This record gives sequence, structure tokens and C-alpha cells, in this order.
Amino acid sequence: MRRFDADAVPLDAAVGRVLHQSIHAERDQPPFDRVMMDGIAIDFTRFDSGARRFRVASTQHAGDPMQPLTDAADCVEVMTGAVLPDGTDTIIPVERLRIAAGFAEIEAGYQPSAGQYVHARGSDHQAGVEVLSPGGIVSPMDIAIIASAGLDRVEVARSPTIRVISTGNELVAAGAPVAPHQVRLSNGPALVALLSQQGFTDCRHDHLRDEPELLAERIAAHLAAADVLVLSGGVSMGKADFVPKVLADLGVELVFHKISQRPGKPMWFGVGRVGQAVFALPGNPVSSLVCCRHYVLPALLEASGCRDRGADWVILDEAVTFEAPLTYFLPVKVRTANDGRRQATPRPPNTSGDFTSLHGTDGYVELAADQREFDAGRPVPYHAWDAP
Amino acid sequence: MRRFDADAVPLDAAVGRVLHQSIHAERDQPPFDRVMMDGIAIDFTRFDSGARRFRVASTQHAGDPMQPLTDAADCVEVMTGAVLPDGTDTIIPVERLRIAAGFAEIEAGYQPSAGQYVHARGSDHQAGVEVLSPGGIVSPMDIAIIASAGLDRVEVARSPTIRVISTGNELVAAGAPVAPHQVRLSNGPALVALLSQQGFTDCRHDHLRDEPELLAERIAAHLAAADVLVLSGGVSMGKADFVPKVLADLGVELVFHKISQRPGKPMWFGVGRVGQAVFALPGNPVSSLVCCRHYVLPALLEASGCRDRGADWVILDEAVTFEAPLTYFLPVKVRTANDGRRQATPRPPNTSGDFTSLHGTDGYVELAADQREFDAGRPVPYHAWDAP
Repeated sequence: MRRFDADAVPLDAAVGRVLHQSIHAERDQPPFDRVMMDGIAIDFTRFDSGARRFRVASTQHAGDPMQPLTDAADCVEVMTGAVLPDGTDTIIPVERLRIAAGFAEIEAGYQPSAGQYVHARGSDHQAGVEVLSPGGIVSPMDIAIIASAGLDRVEVARSPTIRVISTGNELVAAGAPVAPHQVRLSNGPALVALLSQQGFTDCRHDHLRDEPELLAERIAAHLAAADVLVLSGGVSMGKADFVPKVLADLGVELVFHKISQRPGKPMWFGVGRVGQAVFALPGNPVSSLVCCRHYVLPALLEASGCRDRGADWVILDEAVTFEAPLTYFLPVKVRTANDGRRQATPRPPNTSGDFTSLHGTDGYVELAADQREFDAGRPVPYHAWDAP
Repeated sequence: MRRFDADAVPLDAAVGRVLHQSIHAERDQPPFDRVMMDGIAIDFTRFDSGARRFRVASTQHAGDPMQPLTDAADCVEVMTGAVLPDGTDTIIPVERLRIAAGFAEIEAGYQPSAGQYVHARGSDHQAGVEVLSPGGIVSPMDIAIIASAGLDRVEVARSPTIRVISTGNELVAAGAPVAPHQVRLSNGPALVALLSQQGFTDCRHDHLRDEPELLAERIAAHLAAADVLVLSGGVSMGKADFVPKVLADLGVELVFHKISQRPGKPMWFGVGRVGQAVFALPGNPVSSLVCCRHYVLPALLEASGCRDRGADWVILDEAVTFEAPLTYFLPVKVRTANDGRRQATPRPPNTSGDFTSLHGTDGYVELAADQREFDAGRPVPYHAWDAP
């Protein structure tokens, strides 16, 4: 699958996107010795020699250029965020002062330490250091870091153009009348929601009837317009499963068809003539959601240059037995108990059409095919719906 | 804080919003006895009596009205998703058949069970049952459930109008020239990102200089336009901390000022004349982000009618000692080990201005004020940045 190239976006559009550049500190952080409390700035040696009462020579507000203290017997009234005046090194907080008639008097018995409440220039980091590296998903905190580096635009992975295509003559969209032999179309909207939730917002849905000519024409148009196609339905072995043949005729090269897993066994994946990724997912709702979360989203993140986010584990809180020699993806509800152990309660769907049972699940566990019985208390790999 | 009322939005705009209505099943699910495999539908009693070869009387496609089987000696060719023909009760999958010259022959030795591969009408749920209740955050799976209930619009909590207001004369936006005594403005954009990430997208930022008349005029305008104000800076005890007085003059009634916690002690909260919530957060970047995550987001979710999502826990992987008699919110990096235990590594900021250290943290732990030492291995309450 082709890598998505970079796109320079305004900072307020960058959260949730994959960073494509290094961010280097514009200046030392903090950029000057910074006052951390409202109060007065003094020369500590004067306090040490017994001085407790200081004339207020001037006031240093945050945002004002630095005004040095010229007579070390005096002090400067300072505000949080101000530059520490030259000639001073220590802050006495306002709570410890009585200020009147142009003089500040320090509370009897108060013992400051030398240099207190000064956030020293460069103590968080120095100018030029790399504060963010490419490959992370930009968090709200990263927005602060990028803004602080002086950048109002930032390079992130381009958002791929995705088309979700559902098939099936029995499907009728919500809002339209439905006959007894028809069912509601639900996969397309759910897949768009799953992709959008992870920041893949250039994502539109088209529903097609199972007619080879129509499928060929419309899928060709989508291939020409999109980076990624996500199809649902029409990939099994039946007479009305035209999708694999239509894709082959359009020059989409098969990479694999069928995976040793349940649900989602009939999944098909191929690559188009100019590198478009084509995921053809089974039409059963649970299968299509699991396959989208398990294959499509990680592939999109990798093509976006996203660093691998590592494995995740939960502890089964009841025993699971299964028959088929296929990897079993079992939906679960997860909670972390007050001993810090993450417990997963199985919520097996009734069938792979029973998507109503997915409500309230947090993700699914991956149970390896080479085993039949998984005891309660056993840690197993876990995949959260919302953290691909 | 006032509850936000309901807003009917198109289904494709509902993901991530708080549901404000019950969703009831439109029909039985599945709405008919549904064929689960491509193959033939037969009357099982005929197989049981020894029949292995069946004349193909008709074909039942998905999306076609049901065509009953009139002669029980025959079969109907069926596709996945089709209505099970009356007169049949069992599916033989295509992989077990040889179909030629209008007849289907079942593989020798194959033993179907009666009723197999039929997803019985109403077996997932029956018409009229409540499939979703108000108060949940709409997930991609919920989108499928709502679509399947026939709804193309759904009632969710209205998105509140939020104004983020930063103050501080020393702050200069990214992209503009910055003088040595100035610092980059970063809180406003980061707070907008944190709120937007949780679906509160009607959120704009305004930066104001610390001048009482200007603050009064602009905050009054924001109070008139918004449901919620989130201020950052100007809430300490200093001479330039005008925010509490300005808010009081504008009729915002103080609920509390100062919290026994670190960071974030100076936080201020009040309620405006027509019920606007006004959160005035400390200006230090770490403090403002922690307070927004800990107080603002949960309050917004509660006002949206969101159900409480319960407590979360992690295990400290190193000992933590602290001095101040204040609840300590300590940023951490979290990973779940392959024993299913969630381990948190402390990442203490250098100061509450050191937001660069927040990069790569997943949230923060809450260490109670009545203790000074927390041993490694101890479970403690945890708050993920992205799961308020």
C-alpha cells in the first residue's frame, strides 16, 4: 500500500493527524528566567544579610521588556510570567508580604530558599532540540508544543480519499420504506463512522446493487477518484458474489482472498493499477466491522507514517471454548478493576449478523486457532475498537 | 450547570455525540428467516428420508420477495441474505453440492443438521425492544443499530457553544514575531484541541490582554454568545489577575475559587446570569490542561446527559513521594503488560510550565493528599487524557 504524502495544515486542523515532520524548539524553554509567582524579586544575598524590608523600585509585568534592578537594596514587584529582572534571583510570594507606602516587608519567620520560584531559562529544554518526531498522532498537548515552536502550520499525513461501497439488493437505507423481504442498510454508515472517528474524514459511502455492469462502472469511477476502496458484501462464493471478478477485470491485483479467522473469513484484498488499496470485506455486519478495525484502520495508519502503537492485553474473566480451527475474534466489554488488572467479559454475538450485541463492547480479543479452550484468568491479546 | 437540550442530527453526524433518545427495533431482527450461506434450501425431512438429489425449482436471491417451495421433493437455490422459502427449513452450502442440468446433488457422506444456516426471524431481538438507551456516546456500532431501526436522523445532545479565552500580555501567537521577553501563546489552541477531540467542536479561541476594561467588554460579549466559557490565566492573587473581579462585575456568581490540588490550585468556577458555566483555569500550561480534562470535560459530558463511565485504575511502576498536602495529579505513560496488568510510569513535569514533558503521556494518576509515599506496585486512580 502506497504511503500518503505530507500536507501542511493550519495548527487548529492538526489534532488527531499523523505528524510528518520534526518539531524543533524555537527558543530555550522558558525563553528567559521566568517569574513563577506574583510577589517581589530580590537579590537573595540581601535577605541572607538580614534585610526584610525593601523599597519597591519598579514593577515588572508579564509581557513587558525586562527592567533591571539597579540598587540591590531595593526590590522589583513582579507578576507571574514576567522576565526576572537582572540584579535579582529570588521571588518572595505576595502571600508572604505586606506592601505599603512603596515598601514591601517580608513576613517574620518566613525563610525563602535562594533562587526560589524562578523557572530558569532553558531548564525545560534548549533551543533547537527536537521536541516532537514524525510518526506520532498529534495530541492536544502536542498542539501546545507546536504552537510554542512558533509554527502556525504543520505537516501531517495527507488525508486519503476513501470510498465505502456496500452491495446487496436486499438493503434499503434508513428513512425509506422497507418491504418484508428487505433489510436495512447499516454497514456503509457504520464503516464511514469507524473510519471518520480515527480521523479519516474524507470518506463517502455509495450503495450498489449486485449487477455486474453497474458494479464495474461505479467501482471504476471510485477507483479513479479514491486512494482507498472499502467494499462490504459480495466476496463469498455465491452466484451473486460478483465483486472479486469485477475487481480483477478492473485491473485490481489480488493480494489475498480468505483469512483463517472467524468472523471475517471471506475477506479479499488487492491493489489497483496506480496503487489504490482495495479492501473487500464480508457483508455480515459483525464481520465487516471487525475486518475494518483489524485490517483497514492499521493499514491506513501505517500508510500515514504512524508509528506502531504496540500490543494490548486483557484478562478473560470467564472461560471460552470454541470449535472451528480459525482465529476467533470475540467482542468483549473491558473494565479495569481497582487492583489495576484489566478484565474482559466476552459478549459473543448470536451470529455474525447480530451487530446489536456489539453495543457496549469496547473491542475484541484475539484467540489463537491452535487452541480450543481458554481458561478464566488468562491474559489474551486485545484490540480496542477505538485504538487501532 | 444547565443541561444541554436535544438536537436532531443526520445519522452521519451522530457518531461521538451523546444519545438523547431511546432507539427501539423497527422490526424483528432478522426481519425474516434469513439464509446465512449460498447453497440450496431443502425440507430436512426429505434428506432424513434418504434424498440426496433435488430438482432446482427456483432461485431465491437476496432482496427478492419470497418464493415458496411447492413440491417438497425439490429445492430452491438460495443466496446469503435471502428470505428462506416457505416449505424449506435447512440450507446445504454450495461447497457441499454439485449443481448440473437443473439438479443439485449433496456430497456423499455430508451430514447437515436440521435447520442449519438459517438465522431465525427475531432471534437477535424482537420488534419494539429498546436497542439503545439515552446517555451513551454514539459509537460506530451504534450507527449500524440506529440505521437498522430505520432512523436517518437521531436526537443527540446539542453541541454547546464554547469560548476559550486566554489572557496574558506576554503571549504572542505562533506565526508572529516574538520578542525576548515574550512567550508563545499555546494554552488557547491546546484547550480548543482537547475540547474538540471529545466532540465539542463549536469551540473558538480569543486571546485578550490583561486590561480590566477590555476584559469586561469582551468577556461580556462572550457570555452573551456562549453556553460555556473556559478562561486560562489571570486567576491568582496578583495585581494583574483581573479575571475574578471582572467576572463578578458581569454577574457571574462564584461557586468555588481554589482547589486543594497540584497542579491547578488557583482554579475558579462560577455560573453566569442565564446559567452559563464559567471555568477560569490557571494560566500555567500543565495546570490548564489538567483542569480542563479533570473538571471541564466531565462537566460538559454530564450536561450533555452522558452516563458516568466509571473509575479507571493503573499500577504505579515506580515509587512516588511528594510533599505538599494537596492531591497530586501526576502525568503518566501507561502500558498493559502481557499479564493484563496496566502499568503507569510517572512522567513528572519539571514545572507546571513544562508542557513539553506531557508529550507521550496517556493521562495522569490521582494521588490522595492524605499520604506522602506511594510504593511501586500500588494501584491508583487513573484519568486518561482522551477518556473523560
